[in-house]
Amino acid sequence: MNSPAIANTKDFFDLLRDDLAEIEHEFGRDTVSNVGVITEIGEYLRGGGGKRIRPALLLLSSRMLGYSGGGAIRLGAVVEIIHTATLVHDDIIDEAQIRRGRPAANTQWGNSKCVLAGDWLYMQAFKIAIQERNLGILDILISLTQQMVEGELLQIEKLGKSISREEHLDLIFRKTACLFATCMHLGGILAGVSEEQQQLLRSYGRNIGMAFQIVDDVLDLTASEEILGKPVASDLREGKATLAVIHAMERCTPAEKSKIESVLHDRAFNGVTHSDILEILLKYDSLTAANTEATAYADAALRNIEDFPANEYKAALVWAPNFIVSRDR
Amino acid sequence: MNSPAIANTKDFFDLLRDDLAEIEHEFGRDTVSNVGVITEIGEYLRGGGGKRIRPALLLLSSRMLGYSGGGAIRLGAVVEIIHTATLVHDDIIDEAQIRRGRPAANTQWGNSKCVLAGDWLYMQAFKIAIQERNLGILDILISLTQQMVEGELLQIEKLGKSISREEHLDLIFRKTACLFATCMHLGGILAGVSEEQQQLLRSYGRNIGMAFQIVDDVLDLTASEEILGKPVASDLREGKATLAVIHAMERCTPAEKSKIESVLHDRAFNGVTHSDILEILLKYDSLTAANTEATAYADAALRNIEDFPANEYKAALVWAPNFIVSRDR
Repeated sequence: MNSPAIANTKDFFDLLRDDLAEIEHEFGRDTVSNVGVITEIGEYLRGGGGKRIRPALLLLSSRMLGYSGGGAIRLGAVVEIIHTATLVHDDIIDEAQIRRGRPAANTQWGNSKCVLAGDWLYMQAFKIAIQERNLGILDILISLTQQMVEGELLQIEKLGKSISREEHLDLIFRKTACLFATCMHLGGILAGVSEEQQQLLRSYGRNIGMAFQIVDDVLDLTASEEILGKPVASDLREGKATLAVIHAMERCTPAEKSKIESVLHDRAFNGVTHSDILEILLKYDSLTAANTEATAYADAALRNIEDFPANEYKAALVWAPNFIVSRDR
Repeated sequence: MNSPAIANTKDFFDLLRDDLAEIEHEFGRDTVSNVGVITEIGEYLRGGGGKRIRPALLLLSSRMLGYSGGGAIRLGAVVEIIHTATLVHDDIIDEAQIRRGRPAANTQWGNSKCVLAGDWLYMQAFKIAIQERNLGILDILISLTQQMVEGELLQIEKLGKSISREEHLDLIFRKTACLFATCMHLGGILAGVSEEQQQLLRSYGRNIGMAFQIVDDVLDLTASEEILGKPVASDLREGKATLAVIHAMERCTPAEKSKIESVLHDRAFNGVTHSDILEILLKYDSLTAANTEATAYADAALRNIEDFPANEYKAALVWAPNFIVSRDR
């Protein structure tokens, strides 16, 4: 029997519709506190939406392997709450104005309350995770959170400076791929698969996470503001060199390099335009190189899961990497 | 055989000298990260000293009950690291300039890095606590942290406003007594005593924590700047009404009440002096009333441990409550 085809994002999310609705419900219940302002901030953050791609990965991983218990709902909420907590603290740090098309929480409640709301969300995520009574799950979540926090600190130290390819790949692993890997890994733990299989699931998550972030960073350089819903080249404006930019800097002339460096350093396009930068990236095929690298990660993800059982959940995991590298927003 | 007498703070800390030195060492090792700035901030915070009263309670509780394992060292470091993490985030929120007589970490590294360093310290505390492989311990630590964070949020909402006695007692429980209770409780868990005994230890910690904070708050109103090492009446300057102030506000004339309210509201002594406030507090015996309440908590703490075995650690726990209520700084 062939696996049912997953041909588009609608198929993908339809497959998980009921589970994702339950996770949304769990998230809502989990972020109620007897301290009113926490519930308010939690509700605001949850209401901001987001693609819920992290819980979706956890669901697919566990369901592909035959797990049908409620742990996937609880842990699906946990990974989304951890993701939300990192966003709240990151927005304070970046002095963000906008998140998901709405005023960022820090602009509404101020930094003080948002520092504490982020702390509370981390604790709440662990509190729900403890319900699984599995120390291994807590080990993974705590290490994950530390790696993400360290990544954000490393990022701050690199702002405005050029950065090596290796340093950058470590940063995007910590920023995105580490959590994707954790989601897949937790699905495997719930299903009780072998350590070796858990590591394959982890690798799949890591690989699509890397692909996802590289594509995100390329789109930040190339897509229009209308499509992205945020200013173009916001990474450069924040002093962040991403993969295509690093690729070009390794190859370009000193004059070109100094143009890129001045944007990174000034965190603004002063005298150097966004088009000037794009021209340099095109001259060295740097955008193509970054996309090629994303595709390589996506291909590696497919190989990671080739031996897992064929079913509709597997089909969704096979569809996702290609979708991630071909998306335009 | 009589228990060895504990007559002063030197006796108290001498009894724990080796264990506290080990905890200091553990704290130092625990706050090393491969991200340099975390290690720097961790080292700075640890170097700031502090009385280490929380690890001391945990040690006394466990040693009194015959526990001699290394868990007390690890968990002693854990409670001090959690305490440190809350201080880092609180200092960001309060825009503190000084902590323990030195520039607060936020003034040295900026808010962004300190938000993340606080996050990292929380995670590190849990990571070490997990080494005990005891889910009950994690339950307690996570609930503790949430209660403390909620307390700080409640505090923010009450700044500049008058507050009821009950609300205030809840705040100081969350700010101080909850962690003291946890330290005593963890000692009992390590020693493997009954649930009933654990609750008595918890009550002892809660009661001396309440006494400790009430005395601290009275000293803030009455001690001189030279003795405290910080500006007098800093609570009033931050818009915080503490127990003696609440006592007076429940009894004083409308004119006196409006003087107190204006200081709280303005977070400054504009037209109303510190002496004006002290005069009101003396008129209604409010400082005495607060000290009497602290003494009642201290007495309750003594009753909580009266049935525990007599030894030098017990003697230290018997000495501590009276010391706490009679100290002048």
